[in-house]
Amino acid sequence: MSSGDMYSGYIGKLIEELERLPGIGNKSAERLAFYIIGLPKERVDKLSNALTEAKEHIRCCSSCCTLTDRDICTVCADEERDHKTIMVVENSRDLAAYEKTGKYKGVYHVLHGAISPMLGIGPADIRLKELLVRLQEDVEEVIIATNSSVEGEATAMYIAKLIKPTGIKVTRIASGVPVGGDLEYIDEVTLLRALDGRTTL
Amino acid sequence: MSSGDMYSGYIGKLIEELERLPGIGNKSAERLAFYIIGLPKERVDKLSNALTEAKEHIRCCSSCCTLTDRDICTVCADEERDHKTIMVVENSRDLAAYEKTGKYKGVYHVLHGAISPMLGIGPADIRLKELLVRLQEDVEEVIIATNSSVEGEATAMYIAKLIKPTGIKVTRIASGVPVGGDLEYIDEVTLLRALDGRTTL
Repeated sequence: MSSGDMYSGYIGKLIEELERLPGIGNKSAERLAFYIIGLPKERVDKLSNALTEAKEHIRCCSSCCTLTDRDICTVCADEERDHKTIMVVENSRDLAAYEKTGKYKGVYHVLHGAISPMLGIGPADIRLKELLVRLQEDVEEVIIATNSSVEGEATAMYIAKLIKPTGIKVTRIASGVPVGGDLEYIDEVTLLRALDGRTTL
Repeated sequence: MSSGDMYSGYIGKLIEELERLPGIGNKSAERLAFYIIGLPKERVDKLSNALTEAKEHIRCCSSCCTLTDRDICTVCADEERDHKTIMVVENSRDLAAYEKTGKYKGVYHVLHGAISPMLGIGPADIRLKELLVRLQEDVEEVIIATNSSVEGEATAMYIAKLIKPTGIKVTRIASGVPVGGDLEYIDEVTLLRALDGRTTL
């Protein structure tokens, strides 16, 4: 029996919706639901609005494809950044992980995934076409910062092969990142060491 | 730096709101926010509506004070239940814990808290007045099922003293419940053993 069934209508519905979120089990959903019901109405409205507004206004940056609420994201719109260096990451959270170091001055390209034959994700399913379009402009280096998982490595090799003919320098962040690890959980020092130790593919 | 700051407007706002929920830290809020943005619009609307509707429609049962979306909750409205036996619990989740056993046939009274001088919660801050009103009707037994924490025990003793003069039988669920434990996390067998072993206070 789902715990949503235990409770009458609206509580049950709320618990069910919360349970469908990743990492939120039966007990957590119950706790959250009762916590939310106990909050002042303004807080609940704020949370509810934040959900719908984020969904409504967030789209992909028309240059780097990261999630943003503008046409061009803040990084791409920043003229101080080095637009000749593009770091390729799997998703917007990985972008944020490098942004938190505050040291990387280039721009990004967000793939929204990695090539995975297992999951049926091919090169056409990630934002590679958009990357190739950008390479027709004046780009000096493409830093591939996909995760060091099997999929991430495969994606890196694929992109490197794709770009090599253009003569643009292609690098891969150093394996300071532990093998099998997920980029977004790694400390900033390790992230920076990996950036410094990048090697030509 | 809060991780909300890393992201532009709407994502940042959503992350901040999610971070304010109990048990959801910085990283979980980020993961949830990006997961939610990736959901179909209908799913986000459903979640958002579940939040506001629960807040809007949920109130206290006018008899037992549990959270419900009706004037009288389903347990109190059920004529098959034994309305002469009232189990006093701290909150609606504890009620649900006993309801899940499917064996308790009496009704409940939800205190919405426990007496705690440490937190400045006195007898007037929990739903005791409402309980006393109910005792003027034909009640045979009050089973006190507050948690076996310091506050829960203190509350049990307080209620027992209060009811004793009325001549109504007052019992306390057995200490099968581990001392210091929280009622809602205990397995059903233990909950039932505690119910069977209840003793007169």
